[in-house]
Amino acid sequence: MPRLGIIAGGGALPPLLVEAAKASGRDPFVVCIEGAADAALFRGVSNVVAPVAKVGRIVEALKGAACRDLVLAGKLQRPDFRSLVPDLRGLRLLPRLLGAKGDDAILRVVIEDLESEGFKVVGVDDVLADLLAPKGALGRFAPNAQAEADIARGVVVLRALGELDVGQGVTVQDGIVLGIEAAEGTDALLARSKLLAKPGQGGVLVKLKKAGQERRADLPAIGTETVQGVAAAGLAGIAIEAGGSLILDRNAVSRAADEAGLFVVGIAP
Amino acid sequence: MPRLGIIAGGGALPPLLVEAAKASGRDPFVVCIEGAADAALFRGVSNVVAPVAKVGRIVEALKGAACRDLVLAGKLQRPDFRSLVPDLRGLRLLPRLLGAKGDDAILRVVIEDLESEGFKVVGVDDVLADLLAPKGALGRFAPNAQAEADIARGVVVLRALGELDVGQGVTVQDGIVLGIEAAEGTDALLARSKLLAKPGQGGVLVKLKKAGQERRADLPAIGTETVQGVAAAGLAGIAIEAGGSLILDRNAVSRAADEAGLFVVGIAP
Repeated sequence: MPRLGIIAGGGALPPLLVEAAKASGRDPFVVCIEGAADAALFRGVSNVVAPVAKVGRIVEALKGAACRDLVLAGKLQRPDFRSLVPDLRGLRLLPRLLGAKGDDAILRVVIEDLESEGFKVVGVDDVLADLLAPKGALGRFAPNAQAEADIARGVVVLRALGELDVGQGVTVQDGIVLGIEAAEGTDALLARSKLLAKPGQGGVLVKLKKAGQERRADLPAIGTETVQGVAAAGLAGIAIEAGGSLILDRNAVSRAADEAGLFVVGIAP
Repeated sequence: MPRLGIIAGGGALPPLLVEAAKASGRDPFVVCIEGAADAALFRGVSNVVAPVAKVGRIVEALKGAACRDLVLAGKLQRPDFRSLVPDLRGLRLLPRLLGAKGDDAILRVVIEDLESEGFKVVGVDDVLADLLAPKGALGRFAPNAQAEADIARGVVVLRALGELDVGQGVTVQDGIVLGIEAAEGTDALLARSKLLAKPGQGGVLVKLKKAGQERRADLPAIGTETVQGVAAAGLAGIAIEAGGSLILDRNAVSRAADEAGLFVVGIAP
Protein backbone atom coordinates (compact mmCIF):
# COMPACT_ATOMS: atom_id res chain seq x y z
CA MET A 1 0.00 0.00 0.00
CA PRO A 2 1.32 3.48 -0.83
CA ARG A 3 2.03 5.85 2.01
CA LEU A 4 -0.99 7.77 3.31
CA GLY A 5 -0.73 11.53 3.76
CA ILE A 6 -3.08 13.01 6.33
CA ILE A 7 -3.67 16.76 6.19
CA ALA A 8 -4.91 17.26 9.71
CA GLY A 9 -7.12 19.89 11.28
CA GLY A 10 -8.45 19.79 14.82
CA GLY A 11 -10.52 17.25 16.70
CA ALA A 12 -10.47 13.51 17.23
CA LEU A 13 -10.68 12.37 13.62
CA PRO A 14 -7.06 12.78 12.43
CA PRO A 15 -5.56 10.71 15.27
CA LEU A 16 -8.18 8.02 14.60
CA LEU A 17 -7.07 7.93 10.97
CA VAL A 18 -3.44 7.57 12.01
CA GLU A 19 -4.36 4.53 14.11
CA ALA A 20 -6.50 3.09 11.33
CA ALA A 21 -3.72 3.53 8.77
CA LYS A 22 -1.20 1.83 11.03
CA ALA A 23 -3.61 -1.01 11.82
CA SER A 24 -4.07 -1.70 8.13
CA GLY A 25 -0.31 -1.70 7.58
CA ARG A 26 -0.11 1.72 5.92
CA ASP A 27 2.54 4.16 6.98
CA PRO A 28 0.92 7.53 7.76
CA PHE A 29 2.52 10.94 7.30
CA VAL A 30 0.76 13.87 8.93
CA VAL A 31 0.70 17.52 7.91
CA CYS A 32 -0.53 19.36 11.01
CA ILE A 33 -2.23 22.58 9.94
CA GLU A 34 -0.86 25.25 12.25
CA GLY A 35 -3.44 26.63 14.66
CA ALA A 36 -5.88 23.79 13.97
CA ALA A 37 -4.21 20.43 14.57
CA ASP A 38 -2.63 19.61 17.90
CA ALA A 39 0.83 18.32 16.94
CA ALA A 40 1.18 16.68 20.37
CA LEU A 41 -1.41 14.12 19.26
CA PHE A 42 0.95 12.94 16.52
CA ARG A 43 4.09 12.20 18.50
CA GLY A 44 5.68 9.05 17.22
CA VAL A 45 4.27 9.57 13.74
CA SER A 46 6.17 11.24 10.91
CA ASN A 47 4.74 14.70 10.75
CA VAL A 48 5.33 18.31 9.82
CA VAL A 49 3.58 21.47 10.99
CA ALA A 50 2.67 24.05 8.35
CA PRO A 51 0.45 27.13 8.10
CA VAL A 52 -2.52 26.56 5.82
CA ALA A 53 -1.30 29.23 3.38
CA LYS A 54 2.08 27.60 2.76
CA VAL A 55 0.63 25.35 0.10
CA GLY A 56 3.95 24.86 -1.68
CA ARG A 57 5.61 23.76 1.54
CA ILE A 58 2.79 21.30 2.23
CA VAL A 59 3.01 19.81 -1.26
CA GLU A 60 6.80 19.46 -0.96
CA ALA A 61 6.50 17.78 2.43
CA LEU A 62 3.98 15.29 1.10
CA LYS A 63 6.17 14.54 -1.91
CA GLY A 64 9.25 14.28 0.26
CA ALA A 65 7.45 11.71 2.40
CA ALA A 66 6.51 9.76 -0.76
CA CYS A 67 2.77 10.03 -0.11
CA ARG A 68 0.40 9.22 -2.89
CA ASP A 69 -3.04 8.94 -1.28
CA LEU A 70 -4.16 11.90 0.79
CA VAL A 71 -6.97 12.47 3.24
CA LEU A 72 -8.12 15.85 4.51
CA ALA A 73 -9.55 15.44 7.99
CA GLY A 74 -10.42 17.41 11.07
CA LYS A 75 -11.84 20.80 11.88
CA LEU A 76 -10.51 23.90 10.18
CA GLN A 77 -11.81 27.42 10.67
CA ARG A 78 -12.48 29.11 7.34
CA PRO A 79 -9.25 31.11 6.98
CA ASP A 80 -9.21 34.85 6.55
CA PHE A 81 -7.59 34.82 3.13
CA ARG A 82 -6.73 38.49 3.26
CA SER A 83 -4.59 38.17 6.35
CA LEU A 84 -2.75 34.97 5.34
CA VAL A 85 0.92 34.99 4.42
CA PRO A 86 0.98 32.52 1.54
CA ASP A 87 3.98 31.09 -0.23
CA LEU A 88 4.25 31.26 -4.02
CA ARG A 89 1.97 28.30 -4.62
CA GLY A 90 -0.52 29.61 -2.09
CA LEU A 91 -0.41 32.98 -3.82
CA ARG A 92 -1.24 31.39 -7.14
CA LEU A 93 -4.25 29.64 -5.57
CA LEU A 94 -5.50 32.74 -3.82
CA PRO A 95 -7.59 34.27 -6.64
CA ARG A 96 -9.53 31.02 -7.04
CA LEU A 97 -9.97 30.69 -3.28
CA LEU A 98 -11.25 34.24 -2.99
CA GLY A 99 -13.69 33.57 -5.82
CA ALA A 100 -14.98 30.40 -4.14
CA LYS A 101 -18.15 31.10 -2.16
CA GLY A 102 -19.00 28.47 0.41
CA ASP A 103 -16.84 25.95 2.23
CA ASP A 104 -17.44 23.35 -0.41
CA ALA A 105 -16.20 25.48 -3.25
CA ILE A 106 -13.05 26.29 -1.25
CA LEU A 107 -12.34 22.63 -0.54
CA ARG A 108 -12.81 21.76 -4.17
CA VAL A 109 -10.14 24.27 -5.20
CA VAL A 110 -7.70 22.77 -2.68
CA ILE A 111 -8.42 19.20 -3.76
CA GLU A 112 -8.02 20.03 -7.45
CA ASP A 113 -4.68 21.67 -6.74
CA LEU A 114 -3.43 18.66 -4.79
CA GLU A 115 -4.57 16.26 -7.48
CA SER A 116 -2.81 18.35 -10.14
CA GLU A 117 0.40 17.27 -8.37
CA GLY A 118 -0.42 13.60 -8.83
CA PHE A 119 -1.84 12.95 -5.36
CA LYS A 120 -5.09 11.06 -5.04
CA VAL A 121 -7.40 12.62 -2.49
CA VAL A 122 -9.55 9.95 -0.86
CA GLY A 123 -12.33 10.17 1.73
CA VAL A 124 -11.78 9.37 5.37
CA ASP A 125 -14.30 6.58 4.94
CA ASP A 126 -12.00 4.97 2.37
CA VAL A 127 -9.39 4.66 5.11
CA LEU A 128 -11.70 3.91 8.01
CA ALA A 129 -14.85 2.29 6.65
CA ASP A 130 -16.65 1.90 9.96
CA LEU A 131 -16.59 5.66 10.50
CA LEU A 132 -19.62 5.96 8.25
CA ALA A 133 -22.91 6.08 10.11
CA PRO A 134 -24.91 2.87 9.65
CA LYS A 135 -28.63 2.82 9.02
CA GLY A 136 -30.94 2.46 12.02
CA ALA A 137 -30.65 3.03 15.75
CA LEU A 138 -27.14 2.80 17.12
CA GLY A 139 -27.80 2.13 20.79
CA ARG A 140 -30.72 0.97 22.92
CA PHE A 141 -33.06 3.85 22.14
CA ALA A 142 -35.01 4.67 19.00
CA PRO A 143 -36.99 7.76 17.95
CA ASN A 144 -40.68 7.85 18.90
CA ALA A 145 -43.40 9.25 16.64
CA GLN A 146 -42.81 12.88 17.67
CA ALA A 147 -39.08 12.48 17.12
CA GLU A 148 -39.71 10.95 13.70
CA ALA A 149 -41.84 13.97 12.78
CA ASP A 150 -39.18 16.37 14.10
CA ILE A 151 -36.52 14.53 12.10
CA ALA A 152 -38.66 14.82 8.97
CA ARG A 153 -39.05 18.57 9.53
CA GLY A 154 -35.31 18.94 10.05
CA VAL A 155 -34.58 17.02 6.86
CA VAL A 156 -36.83 19.34 4.84
CA VAL A 157 -35.09 22.43 6.24
CA LEU A 158 -31.57 21.05 5.71
CA ARG A 159 -32.36 19.95 2.18
CA ALA A 160 -33.62 23.39 1.22
CA LEU A 161 -30.44 24.92 2.66
CA GLY A 162 -28.09 22.23 1.40
CA GLU A 163 -28.97 23.16 -2.16
CA LEU A 164 -27.44 26.54 -1.32
CA ASP A 165 -24.26 25.08 0.27
CA VAL A 166 -25.39 26.19 3.74
CA GLY A 167 -26.69 24.40 6.81
CA GLN A 168 -24.73 21.76 8.68
CA GLY A 169 -27.36 20.90 11.23
CA VAL A 170 -30.68 21.85 12.73
CA THR A 171 -32.50 21.37 16.03
CA VAL A 172 -36.25 20.80 16.01
CA GLN A 173 -38.65 20.33 18.89
CA ASP A 174 -42.29 19.45 18.37
CA GLY A 175 -42.29 20.84 14.85
CA ILE A 176 -40.58 24.11 15.77
CA VAL A 177 -37.14 24.77 14.31
CA LEU A 178 -35.14 25.95 17.33
CA GLY A 179 -31.84 26.60 15.60
CA ILE A 180 -30.02 26.28 12.31
CA GLU A 181 -26.26 25.79 12.13
CA ALA A 182 -24.44 27.93 9.60
CA ALA A 183 -20.77 28.79 10.29
CA GLU A 184 -20.83 28.60 14.09
CA GLY A 185 -20.53 24.84 14.58
CA THR A 186 -22.73 22.23 16.21
CA ASP A 187 -21.57 23.01 19.75
CA ALA A 188 -22.85 26.59 19.49
CA LEU A 189 -26.10 25.38 17.92
CA LEU A 190 -26.66 23.03 20.85
CA ALA A 191 -25.73 25.64 23.43
CA ARG A 192 -28.42 28.03 22.23
CA SER A 193 -30.93 25.23 21.63
CA LYS A 194 -30.66 24.53 25.35
CA LEU A 195 -32.04 28.02 26.00
CA LEU A 196 -34.86 27.59 23.48
CA ALA A 197 -36.03 24.02 24.06
CA LYS A 198 -38.93 23.27 26.39
CA PRO A 199 -37.56 20.82 28.97
CA GLY A 200 -38.68 17.22 28.78
CA GLN A 201 -40.56 17.62 25.53
CA GLY A 202 -38.34 15.77 23.10
CA GLY A 203 -36.54 17.39 20.24
CA VAL A 204 -33.81 16.30 17.87
CA LEU A 205 -30.52 17.30 16.33
CA VAL A 206 -30.41 16.47 12.62
CA LYS A 207 -27.19 16.55 10.59
CA LEU A 208 -27.07 15.81 6.87
CA LYS A 209 -24.60 16.02 4.05
CA LYS A 210 -25.33 19.04 1.87
CA ALA A 211 -26.40 18.41 -1.73
CA GLY A 212 -23.24 17.96 -3.75
CA GLN A 213 -21.05 18.21 -0.66
CA GLU A 214 -17.41 17.28 -1.27
CA ARG A 215 -17.44 14.02 0.63
CA ARG A 216 -13.68 13.66 0.56
CA ALA A 217 -13.15 16.59 2.86
CA ASP A 218 -16.10 17.60 4.90
CA LEU A 219 -18.70 15.02 5.90
CA PRO A 220 -20.84 15.88 8.91
CA ALA A 221 -19.51 14.17 12.01
CA ILE A 222 -20.67 13.43 15.53
CA GLY A 223 -18.79 12.13 18.55
CA THR A 224 -19.37 11.62 22.24
CA GLU A 225 -19.21 15.39 22.83
CA THR A 226 -22.14 15.78 20.42
CA VAL A 227 -24.13 13.29 22.49
CA GLN A 228 -23.25 15.23 25.62
CA GLY A 229 -24.27 18.52 24.00
CA VAL A 230 -27.62 17.08 22.92
CA ALA A 231 -28.20 15.70 26.42
CA ALA A 232 -27.32 19.07 27.97
CA ALA A 233 -29.73 20.80 25.58
CA GLY A 234 -32.50 18.54 26.85
CA LEU A 235 -33.22 17.03 23.45
CA ALA A 236 -34.18 13.40 22.88
CA GLY A 237 -31.72 12.30 20.22
CA ILE A 238 -29.66 12.66 17.09
CA ALA A 239 -30.39 11.75 13.48
CA ILE A 240 -27.53 11.62 10.99
CA GLU A 241 -27.29 10.54 7.41
CA ALA A 242 -26.51 6.83 7.08
CA GLY A 243 -23.57 6.42 4.72
CA GLY A 244 -23.17 10.20 4.48
CA SER A 245 -21.89 11.21 7.89
CA LEU A 246 -19.22 10.08 10.31
CA ILE A 247 -19.45 8.71 13.82
CA LEU A 248 -16.16 9.16 15.62
CA ASP A 249 -15.73 6.08 17.82
CA ARG A 250 -19.01 4.31 17.27
CA ASN A 251 -18.86 2.19 20.43
CA ALA A 252 -18.19 5.16 22.67
CA VAL A 253 -21.00 7.15 21.03
CA SER A 254 -23.40 4.24 21.45
CA ARG A 255 -22.47 3.88 25.13
CA ALA A 256 -22.75 7.62 25.76
CA ALA A 257 -26.18 7.71 24.10
CA ASP A 258 -27.41 4.76 26.17
CA GLU A 259 -26.17 6.35 29.36
CA ALA A 260 -27.85 9.65 28.53
CA GLY A 261 -31.08 7.95 27.44
CA LEU A 262 -30.78 9.39 23.93
CA PHE A 263 -31.27 7.80 20.53
CA VAL A 264 -28.72 8.06 17.74
CA VAL A 265 -30.20 6.99 14.43
CA GLY A 266 -28.80 6.73 10.92
CA ILE A 267 -31.42 7.80 8.39
CA ALA A 268 -31.61 7.55 4.61
CA PRO A 269 -33.40 10.80 3.83
CA MET B 1 -62.90 56.14 15.17
CA PRO B 2 -63.62 52.97 17.20
CA ARG B 3 -61.43 52.23 20.18
CA LEU B 4 -58.13 50.46 19.41
CA GLY B 5 -57.18 47.41 21.43
CA ILE B 6 -53.47 46.72 21.63
CA ILE B 7 -52.40 43.24 22.73
CA ALA B 8 -48.90 44.04 23.83
CA GLY B 9 -45.76 41.94 24.09
CA GLY B 10 -42.30 43.26 24.89
CA GLY B 11 -40.13 45.88 23.23
CA ALA B 12 -40.57 49.38 21.93
CA LEU B 13 -43.35 48.80 19.43
CA PRO B 14 -46.46 48.69 21.69
CA PRO B 15 -45.72 52.06 23.38
CA LEU B 16 -45.13 53.58 19.93
CA LEU B 17 -48.55 52.33 18.87
CA VAL B 18 -50.17 53.86 21.94
CA GLU B 19 -48.67 57.23 21.04
CA ALA B 20 -49.68 56.85 17.39
CA ALA B 21 -53.26 55.97 18.34
CA LYS B 22 -53.54 58.98 20.65
CA ALA B 23 -52.01 61.29 18.05
CA SER B 24 -54.61 60.20 15.53
CA GLY B 25 -57.42 60.78 18.05
CA ARG B 26 -58.04 57.11 18.81
CA ASP B 27 -58.41 55.96 22.37
CA PRO B 28 -56.09 52.98 23.00
CA PHE B 29 -56.73 50.12 25.40
CA VAL B 30 -53.78 47.88 26.18
CA VAL B 31 -53.73 44.21 27.18
CA CYS B 32 -50.27 43.67 28.65
CA ILE B 33 -49.29 40.03 28.20
CA GLU B 34 -47.88 38.95 31.56
CA GLY B 35 -44.17 38.21 31.47
CA ALA B 36 -43.72 39.90 28.09
CA ALA B 37 -45.05 43.47 28.20
CA ASP B 38 -43.76 45.96 30.74
CA ALA B 39 -46.94 47.41 32.27
CA ALA B 40 -44.96 50.40 33.57
CA LEU B 41 -44.68 51.64 29.98
CA PHE B 42 -48.47 52.00 29.82
CA ARG B 43 -49.15 54.14 32.88
CA GLY B 44 -51.76 56.72 32.06
CA VAL B 45 -53.34 54.44 29.43
CA SER B 46 -56.30 52.18 30.11
CA ASN B 47 -54.77 48.76 30.45
CA VAL B 48 -55.08 45.34 31.95
CA VAL B 49 -52.45 42.67 32.59
CA ALA B 50 -53.29 39.08 31.66
CA PRO B 51 -51.42 35.79 31.20
CA VAL B 52 -51.36 34.70 27.58
CA ALA B 53 -53.37 31.55 28.38
CA LYS B 54 -56.31 33.44 29.86
CA VAL B 55 -57.86 33.97 26.48
CA GLY B 56 -61.39 34.33 27.82
CA ARG B 57 -60.27 37.03 30.25
CA ILE B 58 -58.50 38.90 27.45
CA VAL B 59 -61.55 38.75 25.18
CA GLU B 60 -63.81 39.99 27.99
CA ALA B 61 -61.44 42.86 28.81
CA LEU B 62 -61.36 43.95 25.17
CA LYS B 63 -65.14 43.78 24.94
CA GLY B 64 -65.56 45.60 28.25
CA ALA B 65 -63.36 48.39 26.90
CA ALA B 66 -65.50 48.55 23.75
CA CYS B 67 -62.60 47.81 21.42
CA ARG B 68 -63.33 46.84 17.86
CA ASP B 69 -60.01 47.06 16.02
CA LEU B 70 -57.14 45.11 17.51
CA VAL B 71 -53.40 45.06 16.91
CA LEU B 72 -51.00 42.39 18.17
CA ALA B 73 -47.61 43.94 18.71
CA GLY B 74 -44.35 43.33 20.49
CA LYS B 75 -42.13 40.40 21.28
CA LEU B 76 -43.58 37.24 22.73
CA GLN B 77 -41.66 34.07 23.53
CA ARG B 78 -43.33 31.04 22.04
CA PRO B 79 -45.24 29.78 25.12
CA ASP B 80 -44.81 26.31 26.52
CA PHE B 81 -48.38 25.22 25.95
CA ARG B 82 -48.06 22.23 28.22
CA SER B 83 -47.19 24.30 31.28
CA LEU B 84 -49.79 27.04 30.76
CA VAL B 85 -52.80 27.41 33.03
CA PRO B 86 -55.49 28.36 30.54
CA ASP B 87 -59.03 29.49 31.26
CA LEU B 88 -61.96 27.76 29.58
CA ARG B 89 -61.60 29.63 26.30
CA GLY B 90 -57.85 29.04 26.31
CA LEU B 91 -58.49 25.37 26.95
CA ARG B 92 -60.78 25.16 23.94
CA LEU B 93 -58.07 26.74 21.77
CA LEU B 94 -55.29 24.50 23.05
CA PRO B 95 -55.75 21.52 20.70
CA ARG B 96 -55.51 23.80 17.66
CA LEU B 97 -52.50 25.61 19.12
CA LEU B 98 -50.72 22.34 19.85
CA GLY B 99 -51.41 21.22 16.29
CA ALA B 100 -50.02 24.45 14.84
CA LYS B 101 -46.40 24.01 13.77
CA GLY B 102 -44.50 27.25 13.35
CA ASP B 103 -45.05 30.71 14.80
CA ASP B 104 -47.18 31.74 11.90
CA ALA B 105 -49.63 28.91 12.28
CA ILE B 106 -49.97 29.71 15.98
CA LEU B 107 -50.67 33.38 15.32
CA ARG B 108 -53.26 32.50 12.74
CA VAL B 109 -55.18 30.39 15.28
CA VAL B 110 -55.17 33.30 17.74
CA ILE B 111 -56.27 35.84 15.13
CA GLU B 112 -59.10 33.61 13.90
CA ASP B 113 -60.33 33.16 17.43
CA LEU B 114 -60.33 36.90 18.08
CA GLU B 115 -62.10 37.64 14.83
CA SER B 116 -64.75 35.03 15.66
CA GLU B 117 -65.71 37.40 18.51
CA GLY B 118 -66.30 40.27 16.09
CA PHE B 119 -62.95 42.02 16.54
CA LYS B 120 -61.05 43.14 13.48
CA VAL B 121 -57.35 42.38 13.73
CA VAL B 122 -55.35 44.98 11.81
CA GLY B 123 -51.62 45.28 11.14
CA VAL B 124 -49.43 47.67 13.09
CA ASP B 125 -48.74 49.42 9.80
CA ASP B 126 -52.44 50.21 9.52
CA VAL B 127 -52.12 52.21 12.73
CA LEU B 128 -48.65 53.62 12.19
CA ALA B 129 -48.02 53.84 8.45
CA ASP B 130 -44.49 55.20 8.63
CA LEU B 131 -43.33 52.14 10.56
CA LEU B 132 -43.02 50.27 7.27
CA ALA B 133 -39.51 50.26 5.84
CA PRO B 134 -39.28 52.50 2.75
CA LYS B 135 -37.39 51.48 -0.37
CA GLY B 136 -33.77 52.57 -0.71
CA ALA B 137 -31.06 53.74 1.66
CA LEU B 138 -32.31 55.27 4.89
CA GLY B 139 -29.30 57.30 6.00
CA ARG B 140 -26.12 58.60 4.43
CA PHE B 141 -24.61 55.25 3.50
CA ALA B 142 -25.53 52.78 0.79
CA PRO B 143 -24.40 49.20 0.09
CA ASN B 144 -21.36 48.75 -2.13
CA ALA B 145 -21.02 45.99 -4.72
CA GLN B 146 -19.86 43.36 -2.21
CA ALA B 147 -22.72 44.26 0.12
CA GLU B 148 -25.18 44.00 -2.76
CA ALA B 149 -23.88 40.51 -3.54
CA ASP B 150 -24.09 39.52 0.14
CA ILE B 151 -27.65 40.84 0.31
CA ALA B 152 -28.56 38.80 -2.77
CA ARG B 153 -27.11 35.66 -1.17
CA GLY B 154 -29.00 36.34 2.05
CA VAL B 155 -32.24 36.81 0.14
CA VAL B 156 -31.83 33.43 -1.60
CA VAL B 157 -31.25 31.68 1.75
CA LEU B 158 -34.16 33.40 3.50
CA ARG B 159 -36.53 32.72 0.61
CA ALA B 160 -35.72 29.01 0.67
CA LEU B 161 -36.33 28.94 4.43
CA GLY B 162 -39.32 31.27 4.38
CA GLU B 163 -41.23 28.75 2.29
CA LEU B 164 -40.86 26.45 5.31
CA ASP B 165 -42.00 29.08 7.87
CA VAL B 166 -38.46 29.34 9.27
CA GLY B 167 -35.73 31.95 9.12
CA GLN B 168 -36.14 35.47 10.44
CA GLY B 169 -32.76 36.78 9.41
CA VAL B 170 -29.34 35.89 8.11
CA THR B 171 -25.83 37.33 8.25
CA VAL B 172 -23.59 37.04 5.19
CA GLN B 173 -20.02 38.18 4.67
CA ASP B 174 -18.28 37.95 1.35
CA GLY B 175 -20.61 35.24 0.12
CA ILE B 176 -20.33 33.11 3.26
CA VAL B 177 -23.45 32.64 5.36
CA LEU B 178 -22.23 33.30 8.89
CA GLY B 179 -25.47 32.68 10.74
CA ILE B 180 -29.14 31.96 10.27
CA GLU B 181 -31.75 33.09 12.77
CA ALA B 182 -34.35 30.50 13.74
CA ALA B 183 -35.98 30.81 17.19
CA GLU B 184 -33.15 32.59 19.02
CA GLY B 185 -33.76 36.18 17.90
CA THR B 186 -31.70 38.71 15.98
CA ASP B 187 -29.64 39.78 18.99
CA ALA B 188 -28.27 36.25 19.43
CA LEU B 189 -27.63 35.96 15.69
CA LEU B 190 -25.59 39.17 15.77
CA ALA B 191 -23.70 38.17 18.91
CA ARG B 192 -22.39 34.99 17.30
CA SER B 193 -21.83 36.65 13.93
CA LYS B 194 -19.40 38.91 15.73
CA LEU B 195 -17.29 35.84 16.54
CA LEU B 196 -17.47 34.55 12.96
CA ALA B 197 -17.05 37.69 10.87
CA LYS B 198 -13.64 38.73 9.59
CA PRO B 199 -13.09 42.28 10.89
CA GLY B 200 -13.28 45.14 8.41
CA GLN B 201 -14.45 43.01 5.52
CA GLY B 202 -18.04 44.06 5.15
CA GLY B 203 -20.97 41.77 5.71
CA VAL B 204 -24.69 42.30 6.04
CA LEU B 205 -27.72 41.45 8.14
CA VAL B 206 -30.73 40.63 5.96
CA LYS B 207 -34.26 40.37 7.34
CA LEU B 208 -37.25 39.45 5.20
CA LYS B 209 -40.86 38.60 5.70
CA LYS B 210 -41.41 34.85 5.31
CA ALA B 211 -43.53 33.64 2.41
CA GLY B 212 -47.15 33.84 3.54
CA GLN B 213 -46.17 35.40 6.87
CA GLU B 214 -49.12 36.70 8.88
CA ARG B 215 -48.38 40.39 8.45
CA ARG B 216 -50.88 41.46 11.07
CA ALA B 217 -48.87 39.97 13.88
CA ASP B 218 -45.29 39.34 13.16
CA LEU B 219 -43.46 41.48 10.62
CA PRO B 220 -39.67 41.56 10.94
CA ALA B 221 -38.56 44.69 12.78
CA ILE B 222 -35.36 46.58 13.42
CA GLY B 223 -34.58 49.41 15.81
CA THR B 224 -31.58 51.32 17.05
CA GLU B 225 -30.45 48.29 19.08
CA THR B 226 -30.30 46.30 15.83
CA VAL B 227 -28.03 48.95 14.35
CA GLN B 228 -25.84 48.76 17.44
CA GLY B 229 -25.70 44.97 17.24
CA VAL B 230 -24.69 45.09 13.58
CA ALA B 231 -22.01 47.65 14.36
CA ALA B 232 -20.71 45.54 17.24
CA ALA B 233 -20.59 42.49 14.96
CA GLY B 234 -18.36 44.45 12.58
CA LEU B 235 -20.76 44.17 9.66
CA ALA B 236 -21.35 46.92 7.11
CA GLY B 237 -25.10 47.26 7.11
CA ILE B 238 -28.67 46.04 7.18
CA ALA B 239 -31.09 45.14 4.40
CA ILE B 240 -34.77 44.80 5.21
CA GLU B 241 -37.82 44.28 3.08
CA ALA B 242 -39.34 47.56 1.91
CA GLY B 243 -43.05 47.52 2.70
CA GLY B 244 -42.67 44.20 4.49
CA SER B 245 -40.74 45.02 7.64
CA LEU B 246 -40.88 47.61 10.39
CA ILE B 247 -38.40 50.27 11.43
CA LEU B 248 -39.07 51.34 14.99
CA ASP B 249 -38.34 55.06 15.13
CA ARG B 250 -37.03 55.70 11.66
CA ASN B 251 -35.24 58.94 12.49
CA ALA B 252 -33.36 57.43 15.40
CA VAL B 253 -32.38 54.40 13.31
CA SER B 254 -31.16 56.63 10.51
CA ARG B 255 -29.08 58.71 12.93
CA ALA B 256 -27.65 55.63 14.64
CA ALA B 257 -26.69 54.14 11.27
CA ASP B 258 -25.00 57.36 10.16
CA GLU B 259 -23.07 57.58 13.41
CA ALA B 260 -21.94 53.96 13.13
CA GLY B 261 -21.06 54.32 9.45
CA LEU B 262 -23.57 51.61 8.46
CA PHE B 263 -26.11 51.45 5.69
CA VAL B 264 -29.75 50.55 6.27
CA VAL B 265 -31.49 49.79 3.01
CA GLY B 266 -35.04 48.81 2.13
CA ILE B 267 -35.04 46.25 -0.65
CA ALA B 268 -37.79 44.82 -2.85
CA PRO B 269 -36.55 41.25 -3.21
